[in-house]
Amino acid sequence: MKSIKLGILGIGNVAKGTYQTLELNRKKIEGSIGASIEIVKILNRRPDVDRGIDIPKELYVTDPYEIIEDSEIDIVVELIGGIEPATTYMADALKAGKHVVTANKAALAANGKMLQNLAQENHVMLRFEASVGGGIPIINAITTSLLSNDFDEILGILNGTTNYILTQMTDNGLAYEDVLKDAQQKGLAEADPTADVEGYDVANKLSILISLIFGVDIPPQDIPTQGITSVTTEDINYATEFGYKVKLLASAKKQDDVFSCNVEPTLVPFSHPIASVSNEFNAIYLTGNAVDDLMFYGKGAGPLPTGSAVMGDIISIARRIEKESDYDLLPLLRYDEKLSCIGEGQHQYYIRLSAADKPGVLGNISSTFGRFGIGIASMVQRAEGDEEKNTVPLIFIVYKTERTVLDEALQELVDKKYVEAIGSVMQVHRPAH
Amino acid sequence: MKSIKLGILGIGNVAKGTYQTLELNRKKIEGSIGASIEIVKILNRRPDVDRGIDIPKELYVTDPYEIIEDSEIDIVVELIGGIEPATTYMADALKAGKHVVTANKAALAANGKMLQNLAQENHVMLRFEASVGGGIPIINAITTSLLSNDFDEILGILNGTTNYILTQMTDNGLAYEDVLKDAQQKGLAEADPTADVEGYDVANKLSILISLIFGVDIPPQDIPTQGITSVTTEDINYATEFGYKVKLLASAKKQDDVFSCNVEPTLVPFSHPIASVSNEFNAIYLTGNAVDDLMFYGKGAGPLPTGSAVMGDIISIARRIEKESDYDLLPLLRYDEKLSCIGEGQHQYYIRLSAADKPGVLGNISSTFGRFGIGIASMVQRAEGDEEKNTVPLIFIVYKTERTVLDEALQELVDKKYVEAIGSVMQVHRPAH
Repeated sequence: MKSIKLGILGIGNVAKGTYQTLELNRKKIEGSIGASIEIVKILNRRPDVDRGIDIPKELYVTDPYEIIEDSEIDIVVELIGGIEPATTYMADALKAGKHVVTANKAALAANGKMLQNLAQENHVMLRFEASVGGGIPIINAITTSLLSNDFDEILGILNGTTNYILTQMTDNGLAYEDVLKDAQQKGLAEADPTADVEGYDVANKLSILISLIFGVDIPPQDIPTQGITSVTTEDINYATEFGYKVKLLASAKKQDDVFSCNVEPTLVPFSHPIASVSNEFNAIYLTGNAVDDLMFYGKGAGPLPTGSAVMGDIISIARRIEKESDYDLLPLLRYDEKLSCIGEGQHQYYIRLSAADKPGVLGNISSTFGRFGIGIASMVQRAEGDEEKNTVPLIFIVYKTERTVLDEALQELVDKKYVEAIGSVMQVHRPAH
Repeated sequence: MKSIKLGILGIGNVAKGTYQTLELNRKKIEGSIGASIEIVKILNRRPDVDRGIDIPKELYVTDPYEIIEDSEIDIVVELIGGIEPATTYMADALKAGKHVVTANKAALAANGKMLQNLAQENHVMLRFEASVGGGIPIINAITTSLLSNDFDEILGILNGTTNYILTQMTDNGLAYEDVLKDAQQKGLAEADPTADVEGYDVANKLSILISLIFGVDIPPQDIPTQGITSVTTEDINYATEFGYKVKLLASAKKQDDVFSCNVEPTLVPFSHPIASVSNEFNAIYLTGNAVDDLMFYGKGAGPLPTGSAVMGDIISIARRIEKESDYDLLPLLRYDEKLSCIGEGQHQYYIRLSAADKPGVLGNISSTFGRFGIGIASMVQRAEGDEEKNTVPLIFIVYKTERTVLDEALQELVDKKYVEAIGSVMQVHRPAH
């Protein structure tokens, strides 16, 4: 029986999960490949630190090039994370004729095209199932079974930390800061939660999905992105009243030759399957022109779920090595579509304003909206405002408009002192059917 | 560019959906293969009947062997349905060196092992994504990305007709017969709904999933199966009161070396993601030892969703033909595990009894249950019974027990005339975590 040799770059949670997945299911994994899998080297720059896992010390190396340049190694598994030095290591491994498996959404969103080209030039495979949706096999589905479809729309809950925070705020009426602290204690949020709560992590993942599904190259920094830091329990309560859950939603949509996308807190109707995705779970909801609506649901993070996806990619490559069959070099990331991107596109929006509690205010607001062509779908005004400032909260849901137009209108409301402050603005998802 | 040639057996809804999926997305499909796809012959025994689709008449043949024995044809697509003559046609196609794609759950559940062996002997591929879950790419996921997992449990809503009926009964309080009639008018149920409403269709699909996931060979007729014909709106209302939805659930579970499975109306807690799968949608919920909980959700039937899955299999085979790469002959259906099957296993059950409205009845029932070792978890007795017969409905949810033991206890209740009748018995799903 052939032995297929792996070198792992990194010894963090995902690396440990990958190691554990192999140990746990070695018999099934090797049986499905028809070859044995051997982890021969693991990059661990501080081999003396206790990693909380029983890995033979002789596997550790401190120089990544001991793995990248090892002629015995078939597959380099990059699990360091971050754009650099991970991109350089992957590029050098591909140039050295190694297949590469990675979970690195940041490096792929930034340098996917270059890495894919290197893989093709060097006739090796580059796989990255774990980079989006953790254990959910969404990339495999899109690039194999679902190739028979053209897709109109994708929606995703792609970050477990923010979905956990929003779920706890919704279910238990807790404030953002309190839930964040709790999530940090449970290991569900990092000490510096910026990448998660500001939506940057989701923008990386959405950029990868957009390239796979629509063939459009939208770097994450070009995706209109808004995090969850300004979402209040007040907003969540109003959303509930209107019949919606608040989710940090990644969305991308193609209509004729026009393409729009964004990452932002979004009101999703209770009846939509994605509204019931709770806590640390992720989900991807797609609508294809043949398959219709599909949803994939699962753990978007965690050592073992992510390790499951990494091992799935390893199996897929190892099967081809074992058979000596031609590698699947078909473009996965595609950058060739001639779609024009129009930013967020037109959507309904939820708006919370703080306004002076005096006559004429509502008239001023609605006539300003009117001049910008923004129609009001629902409005709620409550007595209980800020008594000291003599302001009340006003909640609007407005009909479809461009976000840029809405922002101009809101700026005018502030400039003309019709309102004291813009509390929050969130998209409202309206299913097409 | 190479041209890959298909012959389609059948001209029903799935065949039409497959044809339409190719016409709709030909550019993307052929681009992803790197070869053109040509449907050269379609079996249509009555070419003069209007099929409601614009297919060139010269493609029609009336003899299946004009397709099976055509040396030009690479892939035979079997979309006739039913065990025979479909099995014979597939076997003959495989023997003739054709790759075979099928959507036929009945033929696969009955003869999958034989067909798979024939595919291996003749060094060709047999694919059947569309046989379970319609457009949901569950079989591809299990046999590729998820091979890194050992699975403890699967749950499925695998029949759109019965899920539509139960959803309408639940949401609109309608009686079974009325919803069935409505579903038949909408084309969601067949004129003879037996295979759907008695659970036989689901048992076929579960048998295929069990072989793929657990490697156990359980013919559909050996799966304890109960349909939805005895589910009443009364039961659904009680279930709602207890916090459950009633679903026709396929389930299979492995605990140590013991395996249990069944198809039956089951109470699923509102909080479980599968409870929110409504109307004609299907879903498969799996728990892997690395990936944890996963759910795949989508359209389980319909010409285009099923056509999407058939075309996905065709793409997968065509890619390998185009590359002249070795065919993926790994066993998909596995029949080698040494698990012992214990039937349904132990579960909680919901029981509706009709009992005389007189003193001592409850005591008799609970002491009978007690003698059989069956503990009562909840009980509801309502005043409003059948006044003429002087009976009242009694609803029990009992702790985990074997169904065979429960049935014995219920028989004794009837024999001893402690109760007038057993209204209904349904499983209660208790998530492990």
